[in-house]
Amino acid sequence: MRECLYCESAAGDLPQAVVYQDADVIAFLDWRQSALGHVLVVPRQHLSAEELCSSDVGPALLRAVARVARGLRRSISPDGLQMGAIIYPAAGLWQGSGVARADLQRKGAVTEETAEDGHFHLHLVPRRSRGEVARIWPFGDDVENPRHLAEVAARVREAVNAEVRAERVV
Amino acid sequence: MRECLYCESAAGDLPQAVVYQDADVIAFLDWRQSALGHVLVVPRQHLSAEELCSSDVGPALLRAVARVARGLRRSISPDGLQMGAIIYPAAGLWQGSGVARADLQRKGAVTEETAEDGHFHLHLVPRRSRGEVARIWPFGDDVENPRHLAEVAARVREAVNAEVRAERVV
Repeated sequence: MRECLYCESAAGDLPQAVVYQDADVIAFLDWRQSALGHVLVVPRQHLSAEELCSSDVGPALLRAVARVARGLRRSISPDGLQMGAIIYPAAGLWQGSGVARADLQRKGAVTEETAEDGHFHLHLVPRRSRGEVARIWPFGDDVENPRHLAEVAARVREAVNAEVRAERVV
Repeated sequence: MRECLYCESAAGDLPQAVVYQDADVIAFLDWRQSALGHVLVVPRQHLSAEELCSSDVGPALLRAVARVARGLRRSISPDGLQMGAIIYPAAGLWQGSGVARADLQRKGAVTEETAEDGHFHLHLVPRRSRGEVARIWPFGDDVENPRHLAEVAARVREAVNAEVRAERVV
């Protein structure tokens, strides 16, 4: 079994440029800077996104995000700041998708490492007003445009309600 | 002064396909579906990202994110799920940037409306393993690649520390 990159980070076992840490959270510059000041905010515990959102660590993570966001504003002075994270990765991204790995990498798609790793990590990415880091995801192109939003919403709503009922039973 | 789109949403004054709501949060399908099941999770209060992160509404928002994420998994069954949000927008995106508005729109850059609006809204975007919605932001290309991560980190860290000290004084 492979090690978890983010557990290693939290333990201080990797070379990394830390910008903030407290008892629950560590934040450091992403090794691959997609923009100057690109930071990863990571819970020390090995929590998935869904686990994090339901745990006591969630508020600590949000507090860290606010602090680092203000710190980036003060130090890097970007025109804007965006955040992004994988809630859960695409399974089998590289298998049978008919898309060459090099193509996906060129598109900036999720890497294998991220896809395998369940340890939540939130990206804070400074933006410049030239727009080069303004894209959060593609609009248009290959995207489905459902005519029946109400129908889709009904399916999702029913499923969310089932989740809420399940929480109450537990 | 223009109305806030998200305050109107929270008040139920807009046509929208709601998938979840509670006392603090409303979630509905984005009017522009960048993928089937693309949801906006929005605090009812007009809070900026930084305000939200420091407020009592933060944990409620995270709980809603977890619930909707599980609901999407159950109903839409995407290969993956990503989240993204603007922490604060690029000021003057359209003014003097030398980039044509049509160019930015083609790139999927933030729209004027989002850029003007301070009401936090978190996007949950289902992903397919073909990778077409896998991009959170571009790597490479126009991006600065600083050689001196340690130096950048020191600047940011100092600024974050200043923020933490300021919180304690208040």
